[in-house]
Amino acid sequence: VKKIAGGVTAPKGFRASGAAAGIKPGSTKLDCALIVCDVDATIAGTFTTNLFKSPAARWSESIAKNGKARAVFINSGNANTCTGAQGREATQKTADAIAQRLGVLSSDVCVCSTGVIGVQLPMERILQGTEHCFAALSATGGGDAARAIMTTDTVPKETAIEVVLSGGPVRIGAMAKGAGMIAPNMATMISVVTTDATITAENLRALLKHAAESSFNRVCIDNDMSTSDTLLCFASGRSGSGSLIPSTADYDAFAAALVAVCQEMAQALVRDGEGATKFVEIQVSGANTDDDAKTLARAIAFSQLVKTAFFGKDPNWGRIACAAGYAGVAFNPDQTSIWIGDVQVMRDGAATAYAEADAAAVMREAAFCIKISVGNGPGTCVFWTSDLSYDYVKINADYRS
Amino acid sequence: VKKIAGGVTAPKGFRASGAAAGIKPGSTKLDCALIVCDVDATIAGTFTTNLFKSPAARWSESIAKNGKARAVFINSGNANTCTGAQGREATQKTADAIAQRLGVLSSDVCVCSTGVIGVQLPMERILQGTEHCFAALSATGGGDAARAIMTTDTVPKETAIEVVLSGGPVRIGAMAKGAGMIAPNMATMISVVTTDATITAENLRALLKHAAESSFNRVCIDNDMSTSDTLLCFASGRSGSGSLIPSTADYDAFAAALVAVCQEMAQALVRDGEGATKFVEIQVSGANTDDDAKTLARAIAFSQLVKTAFFGKDPNWGRIACAAGYAGVAFNPDQTSIWIGDVQVMRDGAATAYAEADAAAVMREAAFCIKISVGNGPGTCVFWTSDLSYDYVKINADYRS
Repeated sequence: VKKIAGGVTAPKGFRASGAAAGIKPGSTKLDCALIVCDVDATIAGTFTTNLFKSPAARWSESIAKNGKARAVFINSGNANTCTGAQGREATQKTADAIAQRLGVLSSDVCVCSTGVIGVQLPMERILQGTEHCFAALSATGGGDAARAIMTTDTVPKETAIEVVLSGGPVRIGAMAKGAGMIAPNMATMISVVTTDATITAENLRALLKHAAESSFNRVCIDNDMSTSDTLLCFASGRSGSGSLIPSTADYDAFAAALVAVCQEMAQALVRDGEGATKFVEIQVSGANTDDDAKTLARAIAFSQLVKTAFFGKDPNWGRIACAAGYAGVAFNPDQTSIWIGDVQVMRDGAATAYAEADAAAVMREAAFCIKISVGNGPGTCVFWTSDLSYDYVKINADYRS
Repeated sequence: VKKIAGGVTAPKGFRASGAAAGIKPGSTKLDCALIVCDVDATIAGTFTTNLFKSPAARWSESIAKNGKARAVFINSGNANTCTGAQGREATQKTADAIAQRLGVLSSDVCVCSTGVIGVQLPMERILQGTEHCFAALSATGGGDAARAIMTTDTVPKETAIEVVLSGGPVRIGAMAKGAGMIAPNMATMISVVTTDATITAENLRALLKHAAESSFNRVCIDNDMSTSDTLLCFASGRSGSGSLIPSTADYDAFAAALVAVCQEMAQALVRDGEGATKFVEIQVSGANTDDDAKTLARAIAFSQLVKTAFFGKDPNWGRIACAAGYAGVAFNPDQTSIWIGDVQVMRDGAATAYAEADAAAVMREAAFCIKISVGNGPGTCVFWTSDLSYDYVKINADYRS
C-alpha cells in the first residue's frame, strides 16, 4: 500500500471538478463539486439516521440501494433540509440537470447538500453550478472537488492510495468534509470514496459498512448527528486487476485498504473539527464486548467536561472515569485503570502516585492517547475525538452554519 | 402555598450551619455544611447511577434505604471519588465524628462530598470542619449551609414554602448546588430537602422519586452525570399537622408542594449553570408517549449546536429540528412544528414565512421558551436547559473542578 496523489480522481475512470456558484449569498468560494465515472460504477453508501434526513440523502440512499451510478453532485452552503416538497423537487431537478448533460438517467446521479438547514436551495445558482462543474471536469480535478465541499472546514480533506493485488494495482481515493454536527453511528457529514477495483454492489456494500463502522462511526467533534451525513463509494472497475472475490487475499487486502482510507478521512475530520486544538485517541480495553468498549469510548469522547479538560491541557482524569461510569455499560470500577499517554493516573479505581507534570506534558502535545482498561474482558475499541474550545463556541454562536 | 424564609431550617425541627475548613488548599470559603434534625427524621433519597458512585453517595444511599436519619454532613472542594479503600474509610470516619457528637449511630448520619475527583479527603480538616459546624449549628443556619456547598456556583440556591393542610401548616425547605456535571436521569449534584410533615419513609420515597422525575431529571447544563449526585429529603414530623395519608387532599397538596420546591431548585441550577447566559424552557408536545417527549426534549436540551445558538442569540431552528431528528424516537417530520417564543418558525416540517428579527428578539431575552410539536400524540414534556458559552469552556478548561 502506498500513498499517491489525486484524491477522488486518482483511481482510473473518474473525473471531477469544483465551481463557485454563490450558493451562500455573497460568497465567492467553490461551493459545487461534481464527480463523474466514465462508466457505470458499482456503488454503496451509508447515510444519516436522522428523521429530518435531507431530500438529497434520501435520493442518494435510494440510488445506493440499486448499487449503480455514474455521478455525484454536491453543493455546500445549503443543506436543503426541512424544505418540504420544494426541497424534494430541488434535489430531483439537480439530478435531472446532471443526467441530461451526461446522457444518463436521473436515477444514476447521486446528490448531496450540506450547509444551513431550513432555507430553500437557490435553484438558478445550483443549475449554473452544474454547468460550471461540467465545463471544469478533469482527471486531475479531485482537489477542486474536495475544496468545494468545505463548510466550516479549514483545510480540504482528501487522500488516495494504491494497493497491489495479484492482478495488478488498484487505487482508492477519497474526499470528506466536516467540521461540526459530527457524531458517530451514522457515517460522517459527506465523504465520497472512489476506486477502480472491480467488485459487486453487494460486496462493496458489506466492505463499506465495515469500513464506516471502524472509521466515521468512531469519531466525534460535537454531539450532533447531521441531517445530511452521507458516505458514498464508487467503484469503476477500470483498474483491470480482476474481480474481487470474497475470502481471497486480494479481497482482504482491498478491504483493509478501504478501512485505512476511511480512517484517514475520519481522523482528518476530527483534526479539523470546529475549533479543535487537540486530536485525541481514546483506547478502551478490558470491556465485556467490543460494543461495550465502543459505548465507553463514545461516552468519554462525547463528554463536554473531558473535552474542555483536553482544551485546558488539564490531566483531570476524574472526568474520564466519570464519563465511563455513566456510559450505561457494566464494568468493575475497582478494576479500572487510566493512562494519559504513558502516564498511569488511575490503577484499580484509585489515583496512582503519578507526577501531575508528566501527565500535563502529554496533554500539551497536539495529539495524544487516553487509555482506559475496565477489567479483563476481550472488548476493545479505538475512537477519535477533539477538544471543546472557545473557538467551537465562537464558530457556532457567531456563524449560521 | 406561600414562600417563607429560612431554607432548610424553615421547617420545624431542623438546625444547620456552614463552616470554612480549608478543604481546597488555600481556600477560605465556607466548605462544610451540617443539617441536624432534632428527632429521628423519616428520609428518602435518589442517587447517581454512575458506576464510580462516590463512597459518600453509597453511604447515604444505604441509609436512605433504612428510611431514618438524624443528620447530613456535606463538604465541597473534594468529591472523595475514585479514592479506593481510603476514601471509603474517610466517609465512615466523617459519619463517626458527627454521630459521636450527636450521640447517635453512624448509620443515622448521611454524608455528601462534592468537588474534584481522585484526590484523598484531607481528614484532619474535615474533622475540624465537623467541629466548627457543630459549634455554629442554629435554627437560622440554612443560608450558611447553602453557601457552604457551592463549588462553581455563583449564587447559593435555597428556598422554603409553607402549605396549609387540614391539620395546620407544613413547611418544606431546600438547598442545592450545581453547577457543572449536570445531566438528567439521576437527580442533581447535591440537594437536601427538609420538611416538618409527618410521613412514612415508603410514602416519602415515592413522592421524592416523583418530584425528582419532574424536576432534577428534567434539567441539563452539560452532558455529564456526576459521581456524587444526591438528593436527600428529611421529614421531621414536627409540624404537628398529622400524618400524611395517600389519596387524601392533604397528601396531594404536599406532593405538589414537594414538586414545586424541587422544580425551583432544579431551575435554579440551570439559571446558575457554568457560564450560562440563557435559561431556556423546552416544551415538547404531540409525541407518542411522555417518555418519547422527554427523549426529544433531552436531545434538544443536550445539543451543543442548539446551546451555542442560544448563546449566539441565533434563531437557527434547523439545529433544533436536527436534534429532535436524531433523538431515536419515532415521529413524523412532516407533522412537526417549532416555535421560538411565540414565533412559529417551522410548520409541517418546513420553514414558515417568519421574520428573522422577531425570532432573534425572543432570544435576546435572558429566559425564553422553545416549543416543538411532533404530531398528534398525547406525549408531552417540559425540560430546562442553559446555553453553551465561552465561559463554560473557560470555567472547565481553566479550573480544576
